[in-house]
Amino acid sequence: MDTKYVYRFIEGDAGMRELLGGKGANLAEMSKLGMPVPNGFTITTEACNKYYDDGEKINDEIKAQIFATLENLEKETGKKFGDSENPLLVSVRSGARASMPGMMDTILNLGINDTVAEVIAAKTGNPRFAYDSYRRFIQMFADVVKGLSKKRFEEIIDEVKKEKGVKNDLDLDAEDMKELVKRFKAFYREELGTDFPTDPKDQMMEAIEAVFRSWNNERAIYYRKQNDIPSSWGTAVNVQMMVFGNMGNDCGTGVAFTRNPATGERKLYGEFLMNAQGEDVVAGVRTPNKIDQLKEIAPEAYEQFVKICDTLEHHYKNMQDMEFTIENGKLFMLQTRNGKRTAQAALKIACDMVDEGMINTDEALLMVEPQQLDSLLHPMFDADALKEAEAVTTALPASPGAACGQIVFTAEEAIVEAANGKKVVLVRLETSPEDIQGMAAAEGILTVRGGMTSHAAVVARGMGACCVSGAGEIEMDEPNGQFTVNGQTFKRGDFISLDGSTGKVYGGAIPTVPAEISGDFDRFMKWADERRRLKIRTNADTPRDAAQAVSFGAEGIGLVRTEHMFFDGDKIKSIREMIVAKTPEQMEAALAKIEPLQQEDFEGIYEAMEGRPVTIRYLDPPLHEFLPHKAEEVAELAAEMGMEADELQAVVDGLHEVNPMMGHRGSRLAVSNPGIARMQTEAVIRAAINVNKKHPEWNIVPEIMLPLIGDLKELKYVKKIVDDTAKEILAEEGVDMEYHVGTMIEVPRAALQAGELAKEAEFFSFGTNDLTQLTFGFSRDDAGNFLPKYAEAKIYENDPFAKLDQTGVGELIKIAAERGRATRPDIKLGVCGEHGGDPASIEFVDGLGLNYVSCSPFRVPIARLAAAQAAIKHSK
Amino acid sequence: MDTKYVYRFIEGDAGMRELLGGKGANLAEMSKLGMPVPNGFTITTEACNKYYDDGEKINDEIKAQIFATLENLEKETGKKFGDSENPLLVSVRSGARASMPGMMDTILNLGINDTVAEVIAAKTGNPRFAYDSYRRFIQMFADVVKGLSKKRFEEIIDEVKKEKGVKNDLDLDAEDMKELVKRFKAFYREELGTDFPTDPKDQMMEAIEAVFRSWNNERAIYYRKQNDIPSSWGTAVNVQMMVFGNMGNDCGTGVAFTRNPATGERKLYGEFLMNAQGEDVVAGVRTPNKIDQLKEIAPEAYEQFVKICDTLEHHYKNMQDMEFTIENGKLFMLQTRNGKRTAQAALKIACDMVDEGMINTDEALLMVEPQQLDSLLHPMFDADALKEAEAVTTALPASPGAACGQIVFTAEEAIVEAANGKKVVLVRLETSPEDIQGMAAAEGILTVRGGMTSHAAVVARGMGACCVSGAGEIEMDEPNGQFTVNGQTFKRGDFISLDGSTGKVYGGAIPTVPAEISGDFDRFMKWADERRRLKIRTNADTPRDAAQAVSFGAEGIGLVRTEHMFFDGDKIKSIREMIVAKTPEQMEAALAKIEPLQQEDFEGIYEAMEGRPVTIRYLDPPLHEFLPHKAEEVAELAAEMGMEADELQAVVDGLHEVNPMMGHRGSRLAVSNPGIARMQTEAVIRAAINVNKKHPEWNIVPEIMLPLIGDLKELKYVKKIVDDTAKEILAEEGVDMEYHVGTMIEVPRAALQAGELAKEAEFFSFGTNDLTQLTFGFSRDDAGNFLPKYAEAKIYENDPFAKLDQTGVGELIKIAAERGRATRPDIKLGVCGEHGGDPASIEFVDGLGLNYVSCSPFRVPIARLAAAQAAIKHSK
Repeated sequence: MDTKYVYRFIEGDAGMRELLGGKGANLAEMSKLGMPVPNGFTITTEACNKYYDDGEKINDEIKAQIFATLENLEKETGKKFGDSENPLLVSVRSGARASMPGMMDTILNLGINDTVAEVIAAKTGNPRFAYDSYRRFIQMFADVVKGLSKKRFEEIIDEVKKEKGVKNDLDLDAEDMKELVKRFKAFYREELGTDFPTDPKDQMMEAIEAVFRSWNNERAIYYRKQNDIPSSWGTAVNVQMMVFGNMGNDCGTGVAFTRNPATGERKLYGEFLMNAQGEDVVAGVRTPNKIDQLKEIAPEAYEQFVKICDTLEHHYKNMQDMEFTIENGKLFMLQTRNGKRTAQAALKIACDMVDEGMINTDEALLMVEPQQLDSLLHPMFDADALKEAEAVTTALPASPGAACGQIVFTAEEAIVEAANGKKVVLVRLETSPEDIQGMAAAEGILTVRGGMTSHAAVVARGMGACCVSGAGEIEMDEPNGQFTVNGQTFKRGDFISLDGSTGKVYGGAIPTVPAEISGDFDRFMKWADERRRLKIRTNADTPRDAAQAVSFGAEGIGLVRTEHMFFDGDKIKSIREMIVAKTPEQMEAALAKIEPLQQEDFEGIYEAMEGRPVTIRYLDPPLHEFLPHKAEEVAELAAEMGMEADELQAVVDGLHEVNPMMGHRGSRLAVSNPGIARMQTEAVIRAAINVNKKHPEWNIVPEIMLPLIGDLKELKYVKKIVDDTAKEILAEEGVDMEYHVGTMIEVPRAALQAGELAKEAEFFSFGTNDLTQLTFGFSRDDAGNFLPKYAEAKIYENDPFAKLDQTGVGELIKIAAERGRATRPDIKLGVCGEHGGDPASIEFVDGLGLNYVSCSPFRVPIARLAAAQAAIKHSK
Repeated sequence: MDTKYVYRFIEGDAGMRELLGGKGANLAEMSKLGMPVPNGFTITTEACNKYYDDGEKINDEIKAQIFATLENLEKETGKKFGDSENPLLVSVRSGARASMPGMMDTILNLGINDTVAEVIAAKTGNPRFAYDSYRRFIQMFADVVKGLSKKRFEEIIDEVKKEKGVKNDLDLDAEDMKELVKRFKAFYREELGTDFPTDPKDQMMEAIEAVFRSWNNERAIYYRKQNDIPSSWGTAVNVQMMVFGNMGNDCGTGVAFTRNPATGERKLYGEFLMNAQGEDVVAGVRTPNKIDQLKEIAPEAYEQFVKICDTLEHHYKNMQDMEFTIENGKLFMLQTRNGKRTAQAALKIACDMVDEGMINTDEALLMVEPQQLDSLLHPMFDADALKEAEAVTTALPASPGAACGQIVFTAEEAIVEAANGKKVVLVRLETSPEDIQGMAAAEGILTVRGGMTSHAAVVARGMGACCVSGAGEIEMDEPNGQFTVNGQTFKRGDFISLDGSTGKVYGGAIPTVPAEISGDFDRFMKWADERRRLKIRTNADTPRDAAQAVSFGAEGIGLVRTEHMFFDGDKIKSIREMIVAKTPEQMEAALAKIEPLQQEDFEGIYEAMEGRPVTIRYLDPPLHEFLPHKAEEVAELAAEMGMEADELQAVVDGLHEVNPMMGHRGSRLAVSNPGIARMQTEAVIRAAINVNKKHPEWNIVPEIMLPLIGDLKELKYVKKIVDDTAKEILAEEGVDMEYHVGTMIEVPRAALQAGELAKEAEFFSFGTNDLTQLTFGFSRDDAGNFLPKYAEAKIYENDPFAKLDQTGVGELIKIAAERGRATRPDIKLGVCGEHGGDPASIEFVDGLGLNYVSCSPFRVPIARLAAAQAAIKHSK
């Protein structure tokens, strides 16, 4: 059988969303429910894909199906394209599978030409309406189909108004509209060298093609990328008989939500305009009326509409967002869809609908986007103050929340000024591990360089601090303590405000308000916790982060990055002494200084976690990260350490690596410098013993995680260092304490060798950041140079560092999980890379039956909900 | 049943080599054949492993088995340890599965103490012999078991000789020997604080333990590493009744080969000494006699020996290396094994034995080590001249052959001086891609930094040029045009000689001789070609290399690295213009300059290969490799290019990468800069058209290989650029020519996605260098900092860049081969990484059924033989 590319509304239903798009499927569903929907048909998303496959051409088969269905429409409506008695006018609208509001194009009033306009004028006795519709059609067609500037049309309207001496569109009469049509057509011919098309069929085919094309316009591509919509889905096109809200004062048009999309309140919420077409409501030229005023203006239509709203909400079991038109007092439904809503509204609606008995808790859990919760966890700008503000630049929304403070340019300044009680924003070209304390002290971080996965972005998200990154328009002038952006200069101490959720940077101080966490939030998250199978842990390196994560519901720590602790205070000094040590004795002496400090770190974390499990990863980065690289900094440090600059430079040079990501790091450090692993073991074991003494009820069982392991012999070698040290200390302290040793799975070889590794490893934690880097052969630090081009070329539509690559990296995780379990059936499996907080990635690893994911504190609630949704989907 | 750890010789046979070691198995076999072998027993390799598992202790079970077998030996020989009438003396010798000549330890005359010495003196009427044996035993025991310096013992002997006024050991009489025993024991006590052990059983157990320990002495570890012998094999220990070659003038000892190990001549070859023990022959104190002189001295023993030699050679079907002793005119066999031989001898012996009907050609092919052939392909030092020379330093034997020339310090100098007819050796801290022409112009390359897989080493091996790398003892002083090593200073223009096979560096000029390739070589390689299934291609970037490889038997080129061509002449200039281009027009203009030059390159290679298949890989390295990095070089180049230094520096900075191995390279360049792929396609297609016009009989079918592909969409994207360009040119030229497009498999994701990739790729070539880097997460450039430690810790005993990691990387190759074939059954599969020339890796990929391997020209003969051996092994 030939493929069916065109469906009449009555041939479809809501289940055919993939083929008919959301709008088409819902128009079909409403038709089926007997609601007043103007007749029409949908050209499928498959036709759109075929259009692109055929090199942007609508082939003859599809054309034939369109014309056949059009003929049927003409028969059913008794109207005819171009007819001199009962002419058919249609709208042509896009409708993708997922709702993409305003992203693609719409053409109304299609089918008008000079003849038809006259017929309509005569038939309706309303020539102004006829020519108003005509000029609107020309405007939309010229814009959408031909890409002519909208501005020029507005100018022409202004010219005519001026000539006539009026200010309002409504003051233009039929003759003026006729004049506009004339001038519009002239401009069209002038610009394009052809006359405006008069044959309605030609108009329609051009419009359909334009909608297909609009699937790949810039804003649609951007929206898809933001919302993870694959480009392969395509858009459907809906051709629908026009009904007119602008035919007179018993006509009108409006949009409404079944509940308040901002607050979730259960009350019809919407706006309408009488004697207007759809775009007038949105355009804001006239101020629309509140929906309940319709009760007085058109009581019958209003009653009918309220009833329909209720039916639709119960039918779809979700808050609906609808468009309607009233033509000569008669109501027509033009669209319904699940309404977009704020996080707060989403939670309230979900809870209310459960209480109303409309949905069960599983359905409620599936109704809220996990990512949305993020906005409930961070401070926000005061909404009124924000209205006045204009951004000086917009960069990457690297870590959400709002921040306002005085500009500082170094981590040291940030620490000092914050200690003085000032609120500061740290502005840097880019951040590095030494800046961490300064970043923690600042309200927000603004960087000139770096992407969504830059150091600043990753660390800020981990801290829950607001961060805007990659603000390339900023020209730094550090020597003069200032920077310039788009002509404005900001000096040290000036106020600046950042919105980490939008990437906008504002000059001056915009007050922030703490986020509101309503009771619904708590209730909702408890449902999620009951439903999910995956445990949620957090990645945290400080007691502060640990406590924050626990308050967000973390059940343990999946990753303590011990190296982050190495940067503060005396530790960095001793670490550097260890690195430059020339004799084993010097090295041991330096390690002996670090041990008690490191132990103190671990005790703090154990205290904060109150007996919850904590996985501590041993030193991971290459040692050169702890030394400066610039000659002047080396000289300075050398002086501080009582060394010759040359000598220290030689150490720095000796540690230099061509590809540090694949260099001397992870457990390779433990193999070459067992003293470090010994010191860390001592610190972990002693910390656990001490805290257990104070809180025997916590019964802490240390979990020691070895990074970057690739082979069983390597794991055995490092594990032996750990075991020997641990045994020695336990014997010395006369304590009998369990502890576990596990490994990261982050090099592809480890995934393949998981069956072997599980002989020694009591748990695996998938380090999906490094595993992604190595599986693709991409450096995360460098991929920014080519990944955008890959996204543009539709090779990789998602950033694999944000969303787990299920086919490649995912297969390695699957292999490792299977082989690990075959050797050790009760092996504990978790994910501790950035993907641990990404809902799609969580769904994937839930499907593999992993035990937990670990993510940054501010992602814990997201992960809890995502895990619940995954469990619901997998139980189906 | 309990494990049997000790076997009497008559309980074993040659098939038990794994358990009994080579020596033990062959002693058993000779016993079984009825040859005169002194009675004894073997302690197994399993006992050795148990010894290590038990923490370097011989457990009671093994001890009991040893003593029980010893008791049996005493019964059978009628001799007894420490007996006052018929004392038993034994030798204790190591014997690993693979022959490791001289690597481990041997103790003779064990069982002597003061009493036994007197008994022997009386019984033999030869007190000198008794005390000579005694003092030898003390010397060996002190050295092998206790690690005392041999030197001191030699000094004591010299003192006694001096006191006596004689020069030769043979001039010392019984009393002198007694005196030596006294002084040796005194020295032993002084050094160790204990008396020399008098109980023969204690002596034996200590000796056995010492042999086990010797398995892990430094030279044994080194030898194993050189010869790929796993440390898990362990060594056996042979305890054997002593027979004495030093009991008088009707006694003697010798070693012999059934054929000449240097030339392969079929004639008994060996040496012996009368009235001597084994070590005297080797030590060179006395000059031994040629084996045929034995005919006159001990005709009966000689006759018997000749017969035994013949029997053994036929029995083992291989040239034998034997040890024997004559005691009072009676012959005893102490060892037989397959003899080590030169490559030349190996080929002659293999061919002769086929002609003699002793073996078939398969057996002949298995008889020669593929690696050995290497020595037949490179020039060598004149052997006499070499005898005089002493190395000034020894570094890594990075690329074999000998080279002699005048020192230059830059690639430019090398080119200029070579053009002036001088022979030069290029000495550099390390080399980089810009040095390639200079390296080609030099006789040899010496680098201060870098390992066996450094740039210099890899490129030199590819060129077949001699290279010594990592000569860290050299202190460079480039500003003064000189370097210093171990106190000697060498100036620009001084002569220096390198041995790339040993890593030795000599001052002065040592003449070299071209290698001799005898007729046997040709004949032998033809057998290999008939037998192998794998095709052998070469990695070659120039017509010179291509021709060289063809002369060595290459059947095609598996890898043309186009970037190597980019460095010479005008190309580098245009490449740089392309990189700094600011507009598409400038970029196109630069590419247009490169295209004809690149086309010329390809034509040259097609001409050299005379119709054999050639796989051309598109540009692979990141673009920053084509720009200088040092400020002064940037300034210089900027001036040359008519740019501001700042401007060029900005380009260099912009291209900087944190991890260039995982950066913007490979097909990522084609995605971001399609112009490069278009230019290369034009060059390939036009070159093939032109050469086909001249030589229609060659019918060249271009093979285009896309590097670093990780996803089907990426492959499609780049392939489309290739196809569009190719079609355009073929249409323009009116030519109908086939061409193939394939992909490298070098990122793990590509291996996993091979089933998808095979939809578009007509062939896969495994880039095992990069695949190894990414699978392990090792950077080849940086792994030198920790891999030695990993080898030492026995984690990775082989360098995975030299020998394919079969479990990790190998599994990915297996997965890719299976999935690729499932999609496209006739897909062509090859290996083009460094491993393509490694015999073990070749055997592995032959097992996977790959179609070809590609290696550097000088490895082609090795690969041909290795492929034949693999085919023979897999057909069994």
